[in-house]
Amino acid sequence: MEKWRRSERITVMTKYLLEKPNTLLSLNEFTGMFSSAKSSISEDISIIRDVFQQFGYGKIETMAGAGGGIIYLPQVRKEDKYKFLQEIARRLEDPSRILAGGYLYMTDIIFEARTAKKIGEIFAQHFADMKPQYVVTVETKGIPLALMTAKALNIPLVIIRDGGRVTEGSAVSLNYVTGSSHQIRTMSLSRRALPVDSKVIIIDDFMKAGGTAKGMIDLLWEFKSRVLGIGVLIDTKMPEQKLVSGYYSLLKLNNVDEIAKKIEVEPIITDR
Amino acid sequence: MEKWRRSERITVMTKYLLEKPNTLLSLNEFTGMFSSAKSSISEDISIIRDVFQQFGYGKIETMAGAGGGIIYLPQVRKEDKYKFLQEIARRLEDPSRILAGGYLYMTDIIFEARTAKKIGEIFAQHFADMKPQYVVTVETKGIPLALMTAKALNIPLVIIRDGGRVTEGSAVSLNYVTGSSHQIRTMSLSRRALPVDSKVIIIDDFMKAGGTAKGMIDLLWEFKSRVLGIGVLIDTKMPEQKLVSGYYSLLKLNNVDEIAKKIEVEPIITDR
Repeated sequence: MEKWRRSERITVMTKYLLEKPNTLLSLNEFTGMFSSAKSSISEDISIIRDVFQQFGYGKIETMAGAGGGIIYLPQVRKEDKYKFLQEIARRLEDPSRILAGGYLYMTDIIFEARTAKKIGEIFAQHFADMKPQYVVTVETKGIPLALMTAKALNIPLVIIRDGGRVTEGSAVSLNYVTGSSHQIRTMSLSRRALPVDSKVIIIDDFMKAGGTAKGMIDLLWEFKSRVLGIGVLIDTKMPEQKLVSGYYSLLKLNNVDEIAKKIEVEPIITDR
Repeated sequence: MEKWRRSERITVMTKYLLEKPNTLLSLNEFTGMFSSAKSSISEDISIIRDVFQQFGYGKIETMAGAGGGIIYLPQVRKEDKYKFLQEIARRLEDPSRILAGGYLYMTDIIFEARTAKKIGEIFAQHFADMKPQYVVTVETKGIPLALMTAKALNIPLVIIRDGGRVTEGSAVSLNYVTGSSHQIRTMSLSRRALPVDSKVIIIDDFMKAGGTAKGMIDLLWEFKSRVLGIGVLIDTKMPEQKLVSGYYSLLKLNNVDEIAKKIEVEPIITDR
């Protein structure tokens, strides 16, 4: 029977907790792993908990009782979140990002895995209490953010396909109207991708009028799913009246001036 | 000036290393963070290194000299990799996964963030020595695997769009012929998504005849990119002659019998 030192146990436990966020872990997993007394493991955890707290990595909560254990809730501190979003806003304001139609090129940023991971953790922190069972997005650009949110919540990701071409057995398709350009488009979801009566959150990269989000809600309704919340990285100031309400956005695109080559983006400050 | 205990420093350093894989980190980052002597930090690292080694988490290498530091290389042990792939193979062999045309439903598995992460680490381990600068995939189902590979390599992800509809400024489009069904299709890549003369790896979920991979290589050629390697989660036994060669596949789909409702999948064993 090997004997592990505290610093060794802590290395393993830190990795273990980071890889299983929002998941109840029994202390027995650790006592078994190290053949250590529960009291030693508890002390280890309290060290990790304090450090995570001090460095703003998130909370480690203890659930007492027979079915108890610990649970790691990744959290981004308000000041870190603000700084992080400010940095993204600054990058997005680069005039070379202006695309035809007043859109903004931001693919490079949302496809950076570390950036996507942090955004996912911010969404996870916001929605964790609602206990969603699935993260839903529509292809393509929302996928990295939705995947990282799913990872932080430790729940599966479900991707609605853009268009009617679904090669995954029977599917439900829905025609919807994009909110800003009033185009008719189709989105589809394979029947086997999502059980009926699921509780889900929707994550996407961008919202202008909210037509796509509205379409997703309608499609999820066909699956009798309950949409607990919607998170988007960035929404536009105009139109003020969106087709969906009560969504959680991290950044506000106030203005894109194609002539003057000027972009204005700002972090949205909320209490949580 | 706060004084940190070893176990506290190790908690922080473990998280730090895990979040910056395949990245050279200067020891000064840690000595500064903790106001600790370099010798203490070195001892901390050697504890973490030994534990990572023993638990099969990967290697921590030390680079000596002025520009030196440490670098964490995530690795999946051969036996863990085999067990992990065997488990995926077993899940894929569930007859209810058979789709029309002899395809296999595997979206649920590749959209599980933790599974995608491990697959990404296996790809990263295989391709890290080649020093790729970008991970490239084509939408949609390859994205989670490609994103997690990019995360493990700490390099950006580039996504080729399926179809000609690119809203991201000027793009290069290419018509290609799918290898098995001989359909003509289009894929496109925004000019700004990838600098010319880049060294890239291609990651995808599935390969049958290799027509899509061949199309990606041709499209990347237009960007004067050098494709260092191709990684796919699963390829089919038939057709034996693929349109691309020398790719790295983790699983082999030997047979899908739509009548007998039988699927055969096996892990591919390689030396590395």
